[in-house]
Amino acid sequence: MITPPSAVVLAEARQRLTALATPTGALGRLEGLAAWLAACQGVCPPRPLDRVRAVILAGDHGVSHDRVSAYPRAVTAVMVRAFCAGRAGANSLARQHGVSLRVLDLGVDDDLEELPAEVSAYRVGPSEPIDRADALSAADCRYALRAGQIIADVEIDAGADLLIVGDMGIGNTTPAAAVIAATFGLTADQVVGRGTGIDDVRLRRKSEVIAAALRRVGDRAADPEVRLAALGAADFAATVGFLRTAARRGVPVLLDGIVSVAAAGVAEDLEPGMIAWCAAGHRSTEPAQQLALEKLGLEPILDLDLRLGEGTGALTALPVLRSAALLLAEVALLEDLLPAPAGD
Amino acid sequence: MITPPSAVVLAEARQRLTALATPTGALGRLEGLAAWLAACQGVCPPRPLDRVRAVILAGDHGVSHDRVSAYPRAVTAVMVRAFCAGRAGANSLARQHGVSLRVLDLGVDDDLEELPAEVSAYRVGPSEPIDRADALSAADCRYALRAGQIIADVEIDAGADLLIVGDMGIGNTTPAAAVIAATFGLTADQVVGRGTGIDDVRLRRKSEVIAAALRRVGDRAADPEVRLAALGAADFAATVGFLRTAARRGVPVLLDGIVSVAAAGVAEDLEPGMIAWCAAGHRSTEPAQQLALEKLGLEPILDLDLRLGEGTGALTALPVLRSAALLLAEVALLEDLLPAPAGD
Repeated sequence: MITPPSAVVLAEARQRLTALATPTGALGRLEGLAAWLAACQGVCPPRPLDRVRAVILAGDHGVSHDRVSAYPRAVTAVMVRAFCAGRAGANSLARQHGVSLRVLDLGVDDDLEELPAEVSAYRVGPSEPIDRADALSAADCRYALRAGQIIADVEIDAGADLLIVGDMGIGNTTPAAAVIAATFGLTADQVVGRGTGIDDVRLRRKSEVIAAALRRVGDRAADPEVRLAALGAADFAATVGFLRTAARRGVPVLLDGIVSVAAAGVAEDLEPGMIAWCAAGHRSTEPAQQLALEKLGLEPILDLDLRLGEGTGALTALPVLRSAALLLAEVALLEDLLPAPAGD
Repeated sequence: MITPPSAVVLAEARQRLTALATPTGALGRLEGLAAWLAACQGVCPPRPLDRVRAVILAGDHGVSHDRVSAYPRAVTAVMVRAFCAGRAGANSLARQHGVSLRVLDLGVDDDLEELPAEVSAYRVGPSEPIDRADALSAADCRYALRAGQIIADVEIDAGADLLIVGDMGIGNTTPAAAVIAATFGLTADQVVGRGTGIDDVRLRRKSEVIAAALRRVGDRAADPEVRLAALGAADFAATVGFLRTAARRGVPVLLDGIVSVAAAGVAEDLEPGMIAWCAAGHRSTEPAQQLALEKLGLEPILDLDLRLGEGTGALTALPVLRSAALLLAEVALLEDLLPAPAGD
């Protein structure tokens, strides 16, 4: 069981919010975000989020051979190279907001040989097609969970005061939707979404792949680690390990799209209480992400129809979370603004 | 008739968006925002928003003597002093985002004598209670419209690439709701909201004040300038003049809460096409603001239950708009990332 953020500081933050020179409740959802951050930090007012660190965990997926995406499998490697060159959406957002960004290959179907060796330092390999085989062996899943732990440890040791984990992998919304269905008892039709923008034919195919995977795995999915190995991928397992480590070490996380939220569902089953360290950056257009956020009790900061992945939803939401913290710290208390009562 | 943002550049921006190394549509609503900014600037990709300037137009309202707010009338002056001291919510957000912020007294019921003289340079005076008298004389309304024009001219001449106008005035959601009702043909019950957080008794009182004001003014409200004088206030009229000037001079505006949106409705009637230069920062909890945004065809960037005013909703949304512009400018084109075709 994970130690929750401080209830004492949460109460202190709520009290301070009512004393600010703003009408009670006028800061809306910024109030809850500010109080949550204070509780995570164990101090009110919270410190500004000056050392935000993001990682993108990339991998290829067996299902991407099966026409479930609008893009060819090779695009995963193209985008990993783009991250390393600083030219993708996540890079632009990370630069804007002063966020450190690393990309790591957990199982890209490409040797990426011209990239720095550390990019593939935790590589496990692409997943199997989940409708026909377990995505990963149990041993590979454990290895990837452990890799995610180390990846988070590195960021936390570097001083992270907030973590973001993004995803890259053509086809990855198929296993992510399957993991969410298995975690929350939903059907393939409920969780399937258009991912990168697929047509109706591919959408039906994708739903069939998810349904077949759920049938194949059956009751084995009740065990969160088995579920992850059977329906997930190496990059998903690393994401689960990353989230679990952040919560264990008391570092808050801003979740992104369907992959990070699928991983959060598994991480919460593995390590109850983990989700108290997470806020949701945005509501994606993927139905599975929306359903999982609801089941996890998370209300997203942004709702802008984003569906890019890469951590971009969380990175776009970051300034709002930062503002919440700064408002709680910087706005005057009403009593300090009112004229002192007359007296000698 | 206002010259619209460039349709040619809008088309160019949409074309560039589809060519980015992101799935088509994956940036969601950021795509529309980026294209709008490019069209406003007349250049694609758009320049970063480095010179954002905000003003808060403050004033007192006759209705605040009549128990329509949870706060006493004197709080308006307290908050103007807080803005000048840099201690309010808008100050914190403006500092965070490098936004220049000025507060101007259009009609605060206080001499504010210890503040710099320029704060009250455009002062007209508090409004009359709108259920019993016109808020302003026609001459004062014209003066305030002209003041708003000058206030915008100063910001634009200082190099503003985006403008924000915030409000401060205890009781101001009552006239703002009345103006919106008169602009869009809505009833008092449809537009009335809880403002700073009033109870049911005050809410009924507030609705009665709005209904009485609408009855009193009747068909005279069809003329936008008469509507503004009858139901508005000096700070509202200055906001209308400010918005109209921004649009005339081709500077985009990020709207805030109920007052700026009420003013936008009047400005659009005075100067058709003005609204094409506006984006909506946030959806406030005030029903009138939400209804007016819908009527104006504006979808807000944020939906965080904010109801503070001061420009805080627009200031909180600003980084999202900035990100939209930067993503369109910085993300690589997919064709630049793909390996060159084999050839000699």
